[in-house]
Amino acid sequence: MKIYVVGIGPGDSKFMTPAAKAAIEKSDVIAGYTLYVDLIKDMTCGKEIRATSMKKEVERCRMALDACLEGKTVAFVCSGDAGVYGMAGIMCQVAEEHPEVEIEVVPGITAACSGAAVLGAPLIHDFAVISLSDLLTPWEKIEKRLKLAAEADFVLVLYNPKSKKRVMHLDRAVELVGMSRDMNTPCGYVKNIGREGERGTVCTLAELSGNDDIDMFTTVFIGNSQTEVINGRLVTPRGYRDV
Amino acid sequence: MKIYVVGIGPGDSKFMTPAAKAAIEKSDVIAGYTLYVDLIKDMTCGKEIRATSMKKEVERCRMALDACLEGKTVAFVCSGDAGVYGMAGIMCQVAEEHPEVEIEVVPGITAACSGAAVLGAPLIHDFAVISLSDLLTPWEKIEKRLKLAAEADFVLVLYNPKSKKRVMHLDRAVELVGMSRDMNTPCGYVKNIGREGERGTVCTLAELSGNDDIDMFTTVFIGNSQTEVINGRLVTPRGYRDV
Repeated sequence: MKIYVVGIGPGDSKFMTPAAKAAIEKSDVIAGYTLYVDLIKDMTCGKEIRATSMKKEVERCRMALDACLEGKTVAFVCSGDAGVYGMAGIMCQVAEEHPEVEIEVVPGITAACSGAAVLGAPLIHDFAVISLSDLLTPWEKIEKRLKLAAEADFVLVLYNPKSKKRVMHLDRAVELVGMSRDMNTPCGYVKNIGREGERGTVCTLAELSGNDDIDMFTTVFIGNSQTEVINGRLVTPRGYRDV
Repeated sequence: MKIYVVGIGPGDSKFMTPAAKAAIEKSDVIAGYTLYVDLIKDMTCGKEIRATSMKKEVERCRMALDACLEGKTVAFVCSGDAGVYGMAGIMCQVAEEHPEVEIEVVPGITAACSGAAVLGAPLIHDFAVISLSDLLTPWEKIEKRLKLAAEADFVLVLYNPKSKKRVMHLDRAVELVGMSRDMNTPCGYVKNIGREGERGTVCTLAELSGNDDIDMFTTVFIGNSQTEVINGRLVTPRGYRDV
């Protein structure tokens, strides 16, 4: 009775670990959000698919649990890392009354890491990862995190910077970070990481504001006080000594 | 003229992406810290090895650059993700005067992700990654980050929690976090992630202090105000609504 909660990475199979591939191959049932199940369709031939559309996270976990309780081995797939804003947590919560179900989380490359690689090396020093989605988190809490993380001089990685309904959150985030960081701070963003149309852009903190190029498939990076642009790459030095 | 800066993941080849494997295979020269080059010795047969011992980061990057300038394709290997406290940054700095050298960062699974998977799902909400090594960063700066990140209710991931010389830093970190977080907050740590002797332990914030089980090969996780233990797993809920 086993559920693998599998991070398949950003999309391209070259970023999927052998451990993730093996978990999918060992499973009878593939569960997950339709779009992600579709990303691995080359690997799911002959397997039972239990997919649901967006925003039905709890339902999807229950489906995976039910399949497992029927005696099947289940791979519950997530994009990026299943453990970073992923389904690994809800899966553990939904299966709480079934301690006999073994849940194995198989890590994947999350957008902070795959996006950083596209831009250069922005995460060489301490960083904070913040989602700007206030669907499940009060916006005041997100504002507080942005403000304090900026004050602490963390490099910032922003997930879910925008959606169709949330168009102003990123501008507000830039405003909050700008209270303790220069508006010329080197920043960057990456669209469609590891998928068709991948594109990284290096810019300033000011240029993140009112930026129509940034959408829901974008991950945003805000440099710390030491971050610089070297040959077009966003680079945060490791420490405070000269190289 | 190309240098791949390659994150090979925590150690076990099942966590190394096909992109990392391909970069190593395409390269003439393998550069890196002796220990990491050794981790991939199955893949380096017939290739030229240029390895140095610990703490010679800049020298290692210069060696990689020299090999590249000789016309060779180089894979510079790092454990975890080359872009998280890794060599991708120094490599860009050292190669600054050679914009003709193409540097491609190949992301890997960093300890925050691989360690979280061992413990359960601690990183389902906003988190901050902090290194407790004050070798290149003033300790006051690290203290400030710990304090503000705790105040902001981030889940915390601590890299380099101890070394032979730094034995008290983690205790001080616990003290600082404890100023704004309950000492019973669910926490955890993972030793030897993805290597022989891997072991995850769930504990409280108080139990991280004076803990002799934690060493330099350990990654530490401190839950936020919502983190709980479910069937022995460390789980941070995704939001503030009930499942």
